[in-house]
Amino acid sequence: MTRTVYVIGIGAGNPEHLTLQAVAAMNRVDVFFTIDKGAVNGGATADLAGLRADLLARHVTSPHRVVTAPEVPRDRDPAAYVATATEWQARRAALYAEMIEHELADGGTGGFLVWGDPSLYDGTLNLLHGIAEQGQKLEIVSIPGISSVAALAAAHGLILNRVGTPILITTGRRLADGGMPRDVDDVVVMLDGRTAFAGLADTDLDIYWGAYLGTPDEILVSGDLHEVEDEIQSCRTEARARKGWIMDTYLLRRRR
Amino acid sequence: MTRTVYVIGIGAGNPEHLTLQAVAAMNRVDVFFTIDKGAVNGGATADLAGLRADLLARHVTSPHRVVTAPEVPRDRDPAAYVATATEWQARRAALYAEMIEHELADGGTGGFLVWGDPSLYDGTLNLLHGIAEQGQKLEIVSIPGISSVAALAAAHGLILNRVGTPILITTGRRLADGGMPRDVDDVVVMLDGRTAFAGLADTDLDIYWGAYLGTPDEILVSGDLHEVEDEIQSCRTEARARKGWIMDTYLLRRRR
Ligand SMILES: C[S@@+](CC[C@H](N)C(=O)[O-])C[C@H]1O[C@@H](n2cnc3c(N)ncnc32)[C@H](O)[C@@H]1O
Ligand SMILES: C[S@@+](CC[C@H](N)C(=O)[O-])C[C@H]1O[C@@H](n2cnc3c(N)ncnc32)[C@H](O)[C@@H]1O
Repeated sequence: MTRTVYVIGIGAGNPEHLTLQAVAAMNRVDVFFTIDKGAVNGGATADLAGLRADLLARHVTSPHRVVTAPEVPRDRDPAAYVATATEWQARRAALYAEMIEHELADGGTGGFLVWGDPSLYDGTLNLLHGIAEQGQKLEIVSIPGISSVAALAAAHGLILNRVGTPILITTGRRLADGGMPRDVDDVVVMLDGRTAFAGLADTDLDIYWGAYLGTPDEILVSGDLHEVEDEIQSCRTEARARKGWIMDTYLLRRRR
Repeated sequence: MTRTVYVIGIGAGNPEHLTLQAVAAMNRVDVFFTIDKGAVNGGATADLAGLRADLLARHVTSPHRVVTAPEVPRDRDPAAYVATATEWQARRAALYAEMIEHELADGGTGGFLVWGDPSLYDGTLNLLHGIAEQGQKLEIVSIPGISSVAALAAAHGLILNRVGTPILITTGRRLADGGMPRDVDDVVVMLDGRTAFAGLADTDLDIYWGAYLGTPDEILVSGDLHEVEDEIQSCRTEARARKGWIMDTYLLRRRR
C-alpha cells in the first residue's frame, strides 16, 4: 500500500501565513516528522521548533503523533559545498526513509512542516522523491506556503518586478562571487551569511532588507545601499548576538 | 484622518490558498474595491469575479460593502507597451483615488483582493503608493498570497532552484526577445500569451507547464521541451477555446 506524505509550507515566520489548505492537510496527517537540528545553528532550531509546535497546538484537532530524528551532521567546508550537500542529502534520505518506514503505517499519512514555501531553497521534496525512486511507495503532495520572498515584499509594501521586467532570486554566495547581474535590475538574495551586499561597488542600487520577517522580532531597513549598509550591518550584528541566530533576505533594486 | 487600505493576496486559483492572515484582514475591511474588466479578456473576469465573490461569501462575516468601478480601457498595441502601461496606470490611479475618496469614510478600511501574491506582476500596490504620494492620506498594508509560481511548483511537486543556484522569474515577451538566458538554468515564465517556449531552439530544456493552476480546470504537462511542446500547444488551444481564456505559467529547466 501507498503512504502519503504531505510537504506543507507553513510560511516564513508569521503563524497567520498558514493557508486554509495547509490547515486542512495538517488535520489529515497521522504522523508529523521533524529533524532535531540541536544546537547547530545557535538557537534558531529551538525557536522554529517552537513555532511548529505552536501551529500544531493551535490548528490540529485530529489525533496525531510527532516523530523526531536527530539531524545528520554536515560538513560545512564551503569549498566542498556541492559535493558535501549531495552526500549529506543522501544520508538524510536514508534517515527519512527509515523514519517513514518504521513510524508510518501502510496507507497512513505523514507530514513535514517546511519553512516558507517548499519550492524555494528547501530540500524536503527532493529527498522524498529520492526515497520514492529507491522503491518506497510514496505519494508526495506539496502544499505551497508564503515564502520569505513574498514576506519581504509584503513587509516593505513592494512589488518585486517593474513593468515587464524579470526578477532574479539568488544566494549570498552567488552575489558575492558574481556581483550584481548586468541584465536584471531586481535581485532577491537569500541564504546570505556573509552580507554580500556590503561588497558591492555599484552606486545605483537601493536595498530593501528584512530580518526575522513575519515574527515579533522583524527588522526592516531600506534605502540607497551605500547610505544604509552600515546600519544594516550593525542591526544584523546586534540582533544576531541578542537572539543567537538570524535569518535575513533582501531585494537589491537598480535605480533607473 | 488616515484611511487604511489592505491589498490582500488571495492565491492564484485555489480558494483554499487563502491565508489565515488574509481571512482576518478581509474581516476588518469596510469596503472592498473591484474593477469590472467587463468582456475585455474573454470571460476570465467573470470567472475571477466569481472566485472573489465566493471568498467573500465564505469567509467574511463582518458587515461590508463591495464597490465596483468600470475598467479604464487600455491600448494594447504591443510596440507601445511601456508608455501605454504607464499612462494607463495613471488613469487607473485617478479612478482608484476617486473611488477611495468617495466610498470610504475617513478612518475606514478598504480592501483590494489581488490575484496570487501582490508583489508579483500586479499593479495595485504601486497605484496605491502613487495615490498616497499625490496627497491622499493612506496607510497601505500588503498581505502576501500564494503566487502562481508557488502554485506551479506545488502542482508539479517541484523545487524551483537547484542546490545553490538562482531562479529567474520573467515574462513571455522577454523570453521571446532574449531566449533562454545563458547564466540561469531555472526560468519561470509568466504573462506568456505567445507561447514563447515553442520558439526556443535549445535542446537541453525540460518544461513544467501549468494552466488554471489551483482550479478544477488545472492542466499540467511536463517533459523534454521538444517532446511535449506540441501537446502543450494543443492543450492550450483547446482549453482556451472551451473556456474563452487561459492563464498559464511554466518553468524551463536546463538539464545538466
Ligand atoms: C533554507 S532557505 C529556506 C527558504 C524557505 N523555503 C522560504 O520559502 O522562505 C533559508 C533562507 O530563507 C530566508 N528566510 C527564511 N525565513 C526568513 C525570515 N523569516 N526572515 C528573513 N529571511 C528569511 C533567509 O534568506 C534564509 O537564509
Ligand atoms: C498579471 S500576472 C499576476 C500574477 C499574480 N500576482 C501571481 O502572484 O501569480 C498574471 C500571470 O500570472 C500567471 N498566473 C496567474 N494565475 C495563474 C493560474 N491559476 N495558473 C497559471 N498561471 C497563472 C500567468 O502567467 C498570468 O499570465
